[in-house]
Amino acid sequence: MSQFVIGIDLGGTTSKMAVLTPEGEILSKWSIPTDIEQQGQNIVPNIIQSIKEKIYELDLSVEELIGIGMGSPGAVNHKAQTVIGAYNLNWETEQNVGEQFKNAFDAPFCIDNDANIAALGEQWMGAGKGHQNVVMVTLGTGVGGGIVVQGDLLHGTYGSAGEIGHIIVDPDTDIQCTCGNHGCLEALASATGIVNLAKKYMEETDIESQLKEAVEVGLPLDARLIFDCAQSGDTLSQQIVDQFCRYLGLACGHLSCILNPSRIILGGGVAQSGEMMRAKVESYMLQYTFPAIRNHAKLVLATLGNDAGIYGAARLVHNYIND
Amino acid sequence: MSQFVIGIDLGGTTSKMAVLTPEGEILSKWSIPTDIEQQGQNIVPNIIQSIKEKIYELDLSVEELIGIGMGSPGAVNHKAQTVIGAYNLNWETEQNVGEQFKNAFDAPFCIDNDANIAALGEQWMGAGKGHQNVVMVTLGTGVGGGIVVQGDLLHGTYGSAGEIGHIIVDPDTDIQCTCGNHGCLEALASATGIVNLAKKYMEETDIESQLKEAVEVGLPLDARLIFDCAQSGDTLSQQIVDQFCRYLGLACGHLSCILNPSRIILGGGVAQSGEMMRAKVESYMLQYTFPAIRNHAKLVLATLGNDAGIYGAARLVHNYIND
Repeated sequence: MSQFVIGIDLGGTTSKMAVLTPEGEILSKWSIPTDIEQQGQNIVPNIIQSIKEKIYELDLSVEELIGIGMGSPGAVNHKAQTVIGAYNLNWETEQNVGEQFKNAFDAPFCIDNDANIAALGEQWMGAGKGHQNVVMVTLGTGVGGGIVVQGDLLHGTYGSAGEIGHIIVDPDTDIQCTCGNHGCLEALASATGIVNLAKKYMEETDIESQLKEAVEVGLPLDARLIFDCAQSGDTLSQQIVDQFCRYLGLACGHLSCILNPSRIILGGGVAQSGEMMRAKVESYMLQYTFPAIRNHAKLVLATLGNDAGIYGAARLVHNYIND
Repeated sequence: MSQFVIGIDLGGTTSKMAVLTPEGEILSKWSIPTDIEQQGQNIVPNIIQSIKEKIYELDLSVEELIGIGMGSPGAVNHKAQTVIGAYNLNWETEQNVGEQFKNAFDAPFCIDNDANIAALGEQWMGAGKGHQNVVMVTLGTGVGGGIVVQGDLLHGTYGSAGEIGHIIVDPDTDIQCTCGNHGCLEALASATGIVNLAKKYMEETDIESQLKEAVEVGLPLDARLIFDCAQSGDTLSQQIVDQFCRYLGLACGHLSCILNPSRIILGGGVAQSGEMMRAKVESYMLQYTFPAIRNHAKLVLATLGNDAGIYGAARLVHNYIND
């Protein structure tokens, strides 16, 4: 019988779980629906139950369980192992997640926020494999981030390091972020951000464009439409995508200057637009990076997709034990 | 007899040294001229000789020497303990500083760059005392930086983390940095940077100003003149100082979002213009920081002055031993 780790990626719709070897091989992967009814009070018990069943089903011995790691939405206190303000789980008040796991299993439990575990997963087994200093920028509805320094997550004083989405990349723009500030990366270079940019560009020009026409006939103005129009040669859309990439490149330049990583990883739904975007962001990143360190960090696309979280959650256990 | 540490702050003109207790009390502090003749080959032997004399003079026992730490200009490889490209020392080729110290003393030796040791010194015994996550921004001819995470210096993959002077705070400006990029913090918010700003502002306006008059009668256009004119109510100079502080505040906002420190320390000659500047930079920093973490980092002025380096050098030894 060999040792194993369990990684959990808790999400608002499903909770993904996996049994892994300490070396990062997934032995079994499954998911259960996340029951957010009754203030989400069944979420953790359901996960615990499911893990116990899986251990039984796979004929694993609990004595060989090295530990359990978990990623969660909301504000995670990784020391107290509590979560608060995870609204998509209906966890508005503080949840003592660590205590529930410690009562259920006689093994170390670790928890961190979902952006951090995705970064740790990619650093361990994905696009950052073999690199000790890695930053992940996750482009979705917002922009999330996670920073790995010497193989460990960077938390800062209050656990808020890596708020990459709120780096202000354009202090002079009138585009406002949901946080209240103007010019945050997330307000300009996320799925929401590119729509903000598109609205602004369309307002400010009279030039005909495929994008404008598409919106006028009723297509929803979203990231996909803008990228598609840019891809098919629409000049206005290309300008929007270019500006989007310029903001991302500037932020990546900041990350390089401050952290000197060897990999910056672009992940999330928007990053799936792929190589064209990566190359454009990279060209701006190089332009905005101190020449002496320009060849230090490579910009790469994430490779683990939705599995980044379970890998990262499992890796938390390793880092916790070796701390 | 109690244990002691030696800290060395190597500079182009003088080398400052101190004997400290492990708790950071300076028992003796002295300096010797730095002999940069003959490609600086006497620099390290002179320092070693001086330390040996001081140990003898103070009647200390070499058995009680915990270790020696050193800060150096140039590109320092803290692992290999070598220095290259320290032009103000005439060290153009690689200097094996570590080997020389290890041959001279039977005690651990550590070395890092001067900006890093100043940051570590301020974090340990100065404006960052009691804080584990601290960033220091040193405003001189250029802008230097050092980042302390969980009490340890952040180096990044190639030892280049904390290149704060080359964060691009204005990608659209035509003001060029010595590095070749446009809009680096150092090109806009250092002693050189504020002169760059002043030239630009004076060119672009016809408004009469005390600053213009001063320059026309032959006073040198430097940071002091600009700050003095601003202080005495000159509108143009105040606009220049305000822009200078805005750039610094923006960079501090980036540092907060990425690193979540509890202290950001302003040091160096330009920071001696004091509280008025600090307060203005802070107001911009707050404006440019994610509201959820706005009260996490305080902006403070350095308190150790020229002693920051010897404190930081001594602290290197502690971190090295406890690593």
